[in-house]
Amino acid sequence: MRIRKHKWTQKELQINKAIVQDGTVHKGKWNEFFGNDNPIHIELGSGKGGFFAEMSLQHQDINYIAIERQTEIIVSGARKIRELKERGSEVDNLAFLRGDARDLLDYFEEGEICQVFINFCDPWPNRKKWHKRRLTHHSFLEIYRKLLSANGEIHFKTDHTELFEFSLNEFSDNNWKLKNISLDLHNSNFEDNIMTEYEQKFFEKGMVIYRLEAICLKDKLK
Amino acid sequence: MRIRKHKWTQKELQINKAIVQDGTVHKGKWNEFFGNDNPIHIELGSGKGGFFAEMSLQHQDINYIAIERQTEIIVSGARKIRELKERGSEVDNLAFLRGDARDLLDYFEEGEICQVFINFCDPWPNRKKWHKRRLTHHSFLEIYRKLLSANGEIHFKTDHTELFEFSLNEFSDNNWKLKNISLDLHNSNFEDNIMTEYEQKFFEKGMVIYRLEAICLKDKLK
Repeated sequence: MRIRKHKWTQKELQINKAIVQDGTVHKGKWNEFFGNDNPIHIELGSGKGGFFAEMSLQHQDINYIAIERQTEIIVSGARKIRELKERGSEVDNLAFLRGDARDLLDYFEEGEICQVFINFCDPWPNRKKWHKRRLTHHSFLEIYRKLLSANGEIHFKTDHTELFEFSLNEFSDNNWKLKNISLDLHNSNFEDNIMTEYEQKFFEKGMVIYRLEAICLKDKLK
Repeated sequence: MRIRKHKWTQKELQINKAIVQDGTVHKGKWNEFFGNDNPIHIELGSGKGGFFAEMSLQHQDINYIAIERQTEIIVSGARKIRELKERGSEVDNLAFLRGDARDLLDYFEEGEICQVFINFCDPWPNRKKWHKRRLTHHSFLEIYRKLLSANGEIHFKTDHTELFEFSLNEFSDNNWKLKNISLDLHNSNFEDNIMTEYEQKFFEKGMVIYRLEAICLKDKLK
């Protein structure tokens, strides 16, 4: 994504309480940040957080944390939500965390998360040595396994066939239980789909979207 | 498949010892039929058995049973193999069983089978009430679970996207462990593929072939 620098970024970072620049501060006590004990869902590589903005409106009883590496993108998404709130929308259950998936265990205590969403992450194609950067590589799955509470879930979408195949195998090989696998989401019976910005573009081009859910079985299968 | 009636069918049934018309006779003692204790692999809807003919040549230490409902097709395949044998090929590890997948438990004792192959079975598309006829429907998976020895495997190939999606979910939902999932077999790293007659045609048309292996975990996950 091309990143546009805004004049208002620094000011937004100061005034917008939904933006978290240092996730380590809240490790193990995100319930205090949100002011309740509702379950926490995170999205990795959330971009501007449009997907979680929609989710947080639909599910007020869940706390959402959109995680993205780029400050400018996070701030841009968070600014939109602040403006919505100022116009009366109730979006108190959405936070924006500037962070990196590799550092998740610095931001969250083990078992602190109920669901992880990964939507249209970088497929890192072509070179096999890059596969370890894929967010469904088994080294990441081990991080998610620690983060997730018992029977926690990962919800994963992509348009990239080879990444989806890779992910099916990574989950299976590492003892995650797969469910609701879709090889053509928009021609399936799955009803509760919220499209991301990328997905909308892919969908309009008639591209196939893949989706799966994986349940964290913790030690059951070990 | 269009079935051609041959004059020599009845004669072939009489002289060809590789053809089994009544599988129930050998239930629990297929090792006696083959004259050894090698592992037994079966193929459901084998057609003329070309896939298993190739497999049986490559793996002399495994006993193969090609199962097909149509007598004419079975006999036609078995005749070819008999002629090969008469010309000196060693194919003593391949049998042709006229039978129906629904009756497998009449032909085999529980745990008697090591692997089940399902290649390009009827996808029964369109009407949901027909899905129970699919050879990867959970009612069939329960039969295979009984037939298979501990850690027995199913190897499944199809060109039909919706059937493959259905099968991924049926296996996962019913506690089979998936592995070596391929969303484009002929552009994958899988090296030991033997093409069936159907597959050759699909491949020549440039169609995508899906493949998976599923391990029977018996009661581990129940």
